Amino acid sequence: MTGFGFDAPTVIRTKRDGGVLSDAAIDWVIENYTSGVVHDEQMSALLMAIFLRGMTPGEISRWTAAMIDSGERFDFGDLRRDGKPLRLVDKHSTGGVGDKITIPLVPVVMACGAAVPQAAGRGLGHTGGTLDKLEAISGFTAELSKAQIRQQLQDVGAAIFAAGDLAPADRKIYALRDVTATTESLPLIASSVMSKKLAEGARALVLDTKVGRGAFLTSEGEARELAATMVALGTAHGVDTRALLTDMDRPLGLTVGNAVEVAESLDVLAGGGPDDVVELTVALAREMLAAAGVDGVDPAQTLRDGTAMDCFRDLVEAQGGDLSQPLPVGAHAETVTASRGGTMGDIDAMAVGLAVWRLGAGRSTPGGRVQFGAGVRIHRKPGDPVAPGETLFTLYTDTPERFAGALAELDGGWTVGDEAPEVRPLIIDRIT
Amino acid sequence: MTGFGFDAPTVIRTKRDGGVLSDAAIDWVIENYTSGVVHDEQMSALLMAIFLRGMTPGEISRWTAAMIDSGERFDFGDLRRDGKPLRLVDKHSTGGVGDKITIPLVPVVMACGAAVPQAAGRGLGHTGGTLDKLEAISGFTAELSKAQIRQQLQDVGAAIFAAGDLAPADRKIYALRDVTATTESLPLIASSVMSKKLAEGARALVLDTKVGRGAFLTSEGEARELAATMVALGTAHGVDTRALLTDMDRPLGLTVGNAVEVAESLDVLAGGGPDDVVELTVALAREMLAAAGVDGVDPAQTLRDGTAMDCFRDLVEAQGGDLSQPLPVGAHAETVTASRGGTMGDIDAMAVGLAVWRLGAGRSTPGGRVQFGAGVRIHRKPGDPVAPGETLFTLYTDTPERFAGALAELDGGWTVGDEAPEVRPLIIDRIT
Repeated sequence: MTGFGFDAPTVIRTKRDGGVLSDAAIDWVIENYTSGVVHDEQMSALLMAIFLRGMTPGEISRWTAAMIDSGERFDFGDLRRDGKPLRLVDKHSTGGVGDKITIPLVPVVMACGAAVPQAAGRGLGHTGGTLDKLEAISGFTAELSKAQIRQQLQDVGAAIFAAGDLAPADRKIYALRDVTATTESLPLIASSVMSKKLAEGARALVLDTKVGRGAFLTSEGEARELAATMVALGTAHGVDTRALLTDMDRPLGLTVGNAVEVAESLDVLAGGGPDDVVELTVALAREMLAAAGVDGVDPAQTLRDGTAMDCFRDLVEAQGGDLSQPLPVGAHAETVTASRGGTMGDIDAMAVGLAVWRLGAGRSTPGGRVQFGAGVRIHRKPGDPVAPGETLFTLYTDTPERFAGALAELDGGWTVGDEAPEVRPLIIDRIT
Repeated sequence: MTGFGFDAPTVIRTKRDGGVLSDAAIDWVIENYTSGVVHDEQMSALLMAIFLRGMTPGEISRWTAAMIDSGERFDFGDLRRDGKPLRLVDKHSTGGVGDKITIPLVPVVMACGAAVPQAAGRGLGHTGGTLDKLEAISGFTAELSKAQIRQQLQDVGAAIFAAGDLAPADRKIYALRDVTATTESLPLIASSVMSKKLAEGARALVLDTKVGRGAFLTSEGEARELAATMVALGTAHGVDTRALLTDMDRPLGLTVGNAVEVAESLDVLAGGGPDDVVELTVALAREMLAAAGVDGVDPAQTLRDGTAMDCFRDLVEAQGGDLSQPLPVGAHAETVTASRGGTMGDIDAMAVGLAVWRLGAGRSTPGGRVQFGAGVRIHRKPGDPVAPGETLFTLYTDTPERFAGALAELDGGWTVGDEAPEVRPLIIDRIT
């Protein structure tokens, strides 16, 4: 501290030595990092100190509020439909392999009468990003102005947009965490997620907190703590927040990638698709509708009667997408076949996620390009019967030199045996 | 790690999680930080992880070696005088308030027949730097080329120079530590000191490890550990290294600043000066001569017979300095007087160091300018009798608006009481 206020080394030293940062110190460091007075190397030392020393609930709450205040906080509370305020609700997933749930979920919730303002992200590393998947649809754009988001909420009832100017401090910090090995920190994950979600203008929020081999957090205890922390943060900011704790030991659905996940989502919206994707979509929709105060509707019905599909078409069209164009498929394919018959054993989500990343569907560096047609199709789920020589996985890429690396990642990530594997329930718990 | 070797996040993660960095990982990160492939924000996250997780002796040794290898390592082993190799020896102090010891010590050692290649530093914060003090002498320069250093060692037997190209990795890391609150880390201090000292070409080294309120390290246990670590590092690199553990609870001598400390050093070289400065100068000289293998000489005699003063004049002249010019004195003075009589109590080195820094003798940012004439003169030592109204301290600066801040730092840093304070011995221990 100088005579005039704070300085960065003093703030860093406090956390380094296990102290608690005051509200004023947190406000100062976030504001001055956003404006460039506090430098990247100072913030990264502070992030490592936070990683290793932790934060109290009070610090996490203030850190989140300061990141929200670093940019604009959207407010769509004045929007009305048929004379009644829009029910603004969103969901957030901590990220998983094959997690395309946003794509069928948003139209289901729209079809049930709620509205969804969703700030979404691009993928980095082994988990994909919703925007990368949607951008596989010809013409689709997520670069929406605030006025466009407002108009689209009014007109079609949802908008999925790049976070852009929301919580700019978080955007800077997120980029820094990626290159400084400070990602897997509960206070930093919770504040990052919640700063964007509280700024986007939803009045209710459902969190899909993933736990397992393919998730950010592999320990159920940590995932529970993260969910509880985020629920408390949302509630403290006046947003009805609840969480599901869901399994990410194995991939969600039978496709992992960009365009392949859109195709599977269309199957779900058409009333088909893999059981686990349908189950999680409907469960999250129920939570969102309850949090938004919408009752007397059955989200599963919107998949059966086609109203969710209609909403999806409206949403895509509003954002410039053209579903009449074929979805891209990687120009080259490779298969993995069973050397023996038996029963499909466990499939490791991390192995599949890394294989898909190697195929070109994900990024190694922020801002890098992704291949929309790259991905993996899973032909046998854990517990399915397998005949010798049957195809278990198909891999797609535009750049066939990537097959070797992808196959190496997949190797050892699955088994064929004599018995069905033990599988925990998809929805592990509900946290409110 | 990538398929091709290391990447920065993986190295950071290893240390973050309490692991041991391999030799190859340390070599990789230092080499690539020096060349700019590893960025400042990544190194600062790693430094914070090292600060909080520590390093094994093996890691410290490799880190030091890698920093030496980031630049040139001087070798003056071929220099001879009267047909015999020069006895190349140096000392390093971890830094203290009023620590001008290098100034009388180097000429004493020269006068006893050893040669001193000394890479010295500039001050930052509350402790001064040897170069800032010597540059108070009109014309003195520490910017010497390797050829100049070699010639000067041959001709006059010593050179005091800015570390320049020695251990460039350390220079970058040192600047980063200052702004990221990662200075007070034993592995980082030890490797920083020793990388420069092992690169400068001395064959023997004596470390003055300070402990107390005005030192980097306030705990005797930590200071002992630092000294032992540095002695082991030097020995492992083939340099005869030993250390004294000395008191830094109170300032050394009766002057703190730049030119005032040169003036006091000249008093010592003239056979006078404060007892503590003489005691430490002679004790360190004895250690240096023993480490260099010079025997049968009495360093104290060189202060009495004027030979050390002659050596100092030669050294200053060789580096462009002119001792016939008056030393600068701050244009404005302020005094602190005793409000009662009694006995001078303890004087807090940190309070005095901060007061001198506030007066303009030190820097707030690397590369900033210092006032050569700023400083504090101490008129009564702990235990001296004090009459009411007597002057206890005189403060000097060119910028009188600085007095208020300096007086505030000094306030509470000294007492006048009825009894002499308990004072521990100046030389606490010897570590070999």
